[in-house]
Amino acid sequence: MRDVAVVGVGMTKWGELWDKSLRTIFVEPALMALEDAGLDRLDSMIVGCMSSGLFVGQEHLASLLSDYLGKNPVPAARVESACASGGLALRQGFIEVASGMSDIVLVGGVEKMTDVNGGEATFALGTAADQEYEGYHGLTFPGLYALMAVHHMHAHGTTREQLARVAVKNHENGSRNPLAQFPFKVSIETVLDSVLVADPLRILDCSPITDGAAAVILCPVEMAKKLKKPVVRITGSGHATDTIALSARQDLSWIESTHLAAKKALAMAKRKVEDMQLFEVHDCFTIAEIMVTEALGIVKRGQGGPAVADGLTALTGKFPVNPSGGLKAKGHPVGATGVAQAVEVVKQLRGDAGARQVKGATRGLTQNMGGTGGSTVVHVFEAE
Amino acid sequence: MRDVAVVGVGMTKWGELWDKSLRTIFVEPALMALEDAGLDRLDSMIVGCMSSGLFVGQEHLASLLSDYLGKNPVPAARVESACASGGLALRQGFIEVASGMSDIVLVGGVEKMTDVNGGEATFALGTAADQEYEGYHGLTFPGLYALMAVHHMHAHGTTREQLARVAVKNHENGSRNPLAQFPFKVSIETVLDSVLVADPLRILDCSPITDGAAAVILCPVEMAKKLKKPVVRITGSGHATDTIALSARQDLSWIESTHLAAKKALAMAKRKVEDMQLFEVHDCFTIAEIMVTEALGIVKRGQGGPAVADGLTALTGKFPVNPSGGLKAKGHPVGATGVAQAVEVVKQLRGDAGARQVKGATRGLTQNMGGTGGSTVVHVFEAE
Repeated sequence: MRDVAVVGVGMTKWGELWDKSLRTIFVEPALMALEDAGLDRLDSMIVGCMSSGLFVGQEHLASLLSDYLGKNPVPAARVESACASGGLALRQGFIEVASGMSDIVLVGGVEKMTDVNGGEATFALGTAADQEYEGYHGLTFPGLYALMAVHHMHAHGTTREQLARVAVKNHENGSRNPLAQFPFKVSIETVLDSVLVADPLRILDCSPITDGAAAVILCPVEMAKKLKKPVVRITGSGHATDTIALSARQDLSWIESTHLAAKKALAMAKRKVEDMQLFEVHDCFTIAEIMVTEALGIVKRGQGGPAVADGLTALTGKFPVNPSGGLKAKGHPVGATGVAQAVEVVKQLRGDAGARQVKGATRGLTQNMGGTGGSTVVHVFEAE
Repeated sequence: MRDVAVVGVGMTKWGELWDKSLRTIFVEPALMALEDAGLDRLDSMIVGCMSSGLFVGQEHLASLLSDYLGKNPVPAARVESACASGGLALRQGFIEVASGMSDIVLVGGVEKMTDVNGGEATFALGTAADQEYEGYHGLTFPGLYALMAVHHMHAHGTTREQLARVAVKNHENGSRNPLAQFPFKVSIETVLDSVLVADPLRILDCSPITDGAAAVILCPVEMAKKLKKPVVRITGSGHATDTIALSARQDLSWIESTHLAAKKALAMAKRKVEDMQLFEVHDCFTIAEIMVTEALGIVKRGQGGPAVADGLTALTGKFPVNPSGGLKAKGHPVGATGVAQAVEVVKQLRGDAGARQVKGATRGLTQNMGGTGGSTVVHVFEAE
């Protein structure tokens, strides 16, 4: 397998983009990434998107986007793994470059979520759960994560305040990210007083509905070295699945797919989790970040709550988690999230992250998961 | 890149499978393929499916299927390229094995299309076209292919009878395939008298709405040689895109993506189209097969109509096309079709195709396309 580098990144402002269609939302960061890479050709495209069928009535997505980008007849593949679609796209692009099948691959992620009403969006997102065993009985994603939160509180003594600390931290970071959907701080009182969605989760525990896209350009490291840019390698890629239905898990508040995907990615990179200097993880709900820090091994099982409360995962902490603001503040256009995590880590490792820069960071990790952890994709990035 | 072989195939009877859900439909051929391969482990799964979101309200599909197959935590990715989703899955699996990332990969394709009504199915299939520029103005797939047929008749003198000959040939072949949805012969008169769908296309020019799945197991050729089975290699893989909107094409009845994908696949295999002894191609409508035989180079531009009328593409002709019965008689569960094409070619190259066996065939080609040719995936298979 060939070594793979990220040589271009692109992301635009996320939010409720009423004046842009899915194809426009995608093409803007894709062009930015191509320009950033400074390469004059493209061999292939991989696009992560969860449900363009249900959100905008459009499948055959990769062909549409390669067409609108002016890149046909380039091969273009769409991949889907619910909210981990972006991470999966990165992995498929990584494999394609590593294999030698293609040299220069554009990996993009996109979701246009605001063209449907709230009920339709809840249904579309619910298709990440087991429809026959969960969805049709009334479970929604806030409901599923609320069950996980209650279990975590019961099993490990996690408190309502610790959940709120995740939102406070990620909005603090997001206030330093001009591309974030909600680039402002929130106080712990605001989180605790926000409207209840599914007990114990309140609206400020939940990531938002977002329109957005992100893109990166991959190529072999040997080719990247000839470009006049800092080289950021992808040194590890891990992917694992778990039961899609929460009811089939042995432990409701342990994300086994994240644990396994991280183990594989770190083993491939020949690194330990302690070697990582920043983490972009899947905080679709505040409880998710707490469970993920445990599954990654940043803290021991059950210690995710105290870790955030003690500042371990703050921007200036020992293990900064979600310097970008995370899904919580940056927004969560589901298929784009995994690619945006890579964009953030590359910016950080290049030293281009502005007011949210983790000083001197040379190694970072992304963790992107689908549903309640039915799938996870983890990547390790290292600056030369 | 490592050499890749197909070592297991599985397919069950296709049709309107009212008593089976999507997951059951998928798992049956997947288990058959695993048993056929006789391998005791699985490293990864790739699943092709066009629109489980719109057809059955389920995304996060690969995790669901790996779970139901009892294979989690194995990595599982779903890919989509409209009706070419199955061919794309095969290509992604091929790349994954070739890269060295995984040794044993299950590639499956599935679609459960009959749980929605006719209007909903037409809408779901229409998402393979450009929704903003075609779908929302009323174009459906029979309508788009009817436009292509009218253009082909005008430009090349193709006749209504020649279109019907494609249906007659493929039903003749399909009558020899016990797994086909419609395993019976039709006469040219029956086709010509069948109900009009979109002039000039009649119902017997159209592939049906089908529930079904298919699966193959891939591994490196070196590993395949140790198994006690005939080794069938994938020697070429080609993938190309085109404008997704038909209105943007230079020639309405020329499938450029098929032309380019075949060129790439044949070049990789170091073969010419004349070296191929059978073809499984995407006859979603009778006119499609005519255009595809031209784009592949089996016949010259404009000669697809006479070719079928003269028997060139019959089971006993020089270049047998769709010995399985094609999409027309075998059925067209859109995401499964590309994988089922591979199943047929492998059965043929193993000499296991029963009453429809192409005698002594050692080389075959599959061509699977999305929409009106917005994407095409072509593979070349060769027996050792």
